[in-house]
Amino acid sequence: MNHPKELSPAQVETHPFDHAMILERQADGRFRGHTSAAYWNMVGPYGGTTAALLLRAVMLSPERAGDPLSLTVNYLAPMSEGELMVDAELVRANRTNQHWSLRMSQGERPVATALAITAMRRETWSHTEARPPVVPRPEQCTPTPRAPLPFLQRYEFRHIEGTPFQAGGSSDTKEWVADNPPRPLDYPSLAALCDAFLPRIFLRRDRPIPISTVSMNIYFHTGAEVLQRHGSKPLLAVANGHVFSDGHFDQQGQLWGDGDALLATTHQIVWYKE
Amino acid sequence: MNHPKELSPAQVETHPFDHAMILERQADGRFRGHTSAAYWNMVGPYGGTTAALLLRAVMLSPERAGDPLSLTVNYLAPMSEGELMVDAELVRANRTNQHWSLRMSQGERPVATALAITAMRRETWSHTEARPPVVPRPEQCTPTPRAPLPFLQRYEFRHIEGTPFQAGGSSDTKEWVADNPPRPLDYPSLAALCDAFLPRIFLRRDRPIPISTVSMNIYFHTGAEVLQRHGSKPLLAVANGHVFSDGHFDQQGQLWGDGDALLATTHQIVWYKE
Repeated sequence: MNHPKELSPAQVETHPFDHAMILERQADGRFRGHTSAAYWNMVGPYGGTTAALLLRAVMLSPERAGDPLSLTVNYLAPMSEGELMVDAELVRANRTNQHWSLRMSQGERPVATALAITAMRRETWSHTEARPPVVPRPEQCTPTPRAPLPFLQRYEFRHIEGTPFQAGGSSDTKEWVADNPPRPLDYPSLAALCDAFLPRIFLRRDRPIPISTVSMNIYFHTGAEVLQRHGSKPLLAVANGHVFSDGHFDQQGQLWGDGDALLATTHQIVWYKE
Repeated sequence: MNHPKELSPAQVETHPFDHAMILERQADGRFRGHTSAAYWNMVGPYGGTTAALLLRAVMLSPERAGDPLSLTVNYLAPMSEGELMVDAELVRANRTNQHWSLRMSQGERPVATALAITAMRRETWSHTEARPPVVPRPEQCTPTPRAPLPFLQRYEFRHIEGTPFQAGGSSDTKEWVADNPPRPLDYPSLAALCDAFLPRIFLRRDRPIPISTVSMNIYFHTGAEVLQRHGSKPLLAVANGHVFSDGHFDQQGQLWGDGDALLATTHQIVWYKE
């Protein structure tokens, strides 16, 4: 499912996510990348890799200082297979943070806009008020079979709570999720994982219906060293939704690392047809 | 606390929020407005009015179709008193939604960036899964005294749960909140109300500490007619935080109208010094 014609011998060995994340900085400062067949969704690239590419453009920018703090991605239009360009503008640099404005295009066509913030983390009074739910360990849970979409094969899900298409009374889900094959966690892969939650409406209805993420918001709550320590272990993914209303529903999610390390919280607003 | 020199006789009668929302569309399509002394915060304008002005620029744009669905505002820099300009770019219009990119500047200095989506609401299977907490009615709660900051005087808060500066074990708050004087709800005033929650860290510490919202995200869950029906009644504001970490904390909030009408959900990431 890779792009065989573009793979050099070295790239054949790289993880599909690293291959999907290849961005080439051009003389004019724009970044050139490609959609990834390995992370293909139903009719276009997986929104998680789109978000990750936008974040990666920030991280590759020579002016970048600090770690990612927040990322908002608006998905403007379906993307086609092939080349994509990312413009990353540092709108303002402060003493403790940087504000980035991003746009992804295919040809003349904007396909995504984003805002990102990077920030210096400082030692302060810190406390994780939210608690992870008490759940069985990943090795006690069996991998969940998923639909044969390429991007779903790039993740290993282990079901804990919440089964799609049962028309249940709640959209709550809990599951373990990891890159497949395993890969050490970093900010772009964490951003991509934020889009790997089941669409909330699948929990409430009895069959798949057309859905499309319109906007995704991510707050990153730890420094890079916490992600490094986490390595390639599964993350505990917890999500629920508030409201399904007139063609859009929301979703809020948490991604937990070891212990009480809340790595990211994330929100989406999603279009649906029902 | 208004700008007396700029008030026409008609404006003297307008609500301070409507005065704060005055935007003049120029020949080049940019919007010109002013900071509002009536909504002044500690060292600059209240972030809620900044968000509301950005949203209002979208709503005043002649190409705009549909109602607000989402708004993300990044606060780049302290603003000074005086003129502000808003650039509102319609990046893409689809059949069911529009994607807007916004920038607020003072002189050459960008002070806020934003992304907004407007969308056509369609009749679909709809359901509010979240439930409002069971709380006393507004008339059973007494108005809460607040610090003498101008913007705090523009709201009437009625305390239900969560008292600042008690170094409590939770950042949960519940309160009734309304414009003061009362004013019929609309999307800009709802956006402004999303920034009126107590900073979560005030609930966890025993004294005020410096804080500053870095990014705010809002999802609007109802059509304009629901806001109209709501009128000027108080909204039930419910909020909590997940994590206080290395100089930033998050906040998630809900704004409920009558019955189970969840009007907006909102998230912030906030810088703090402690």
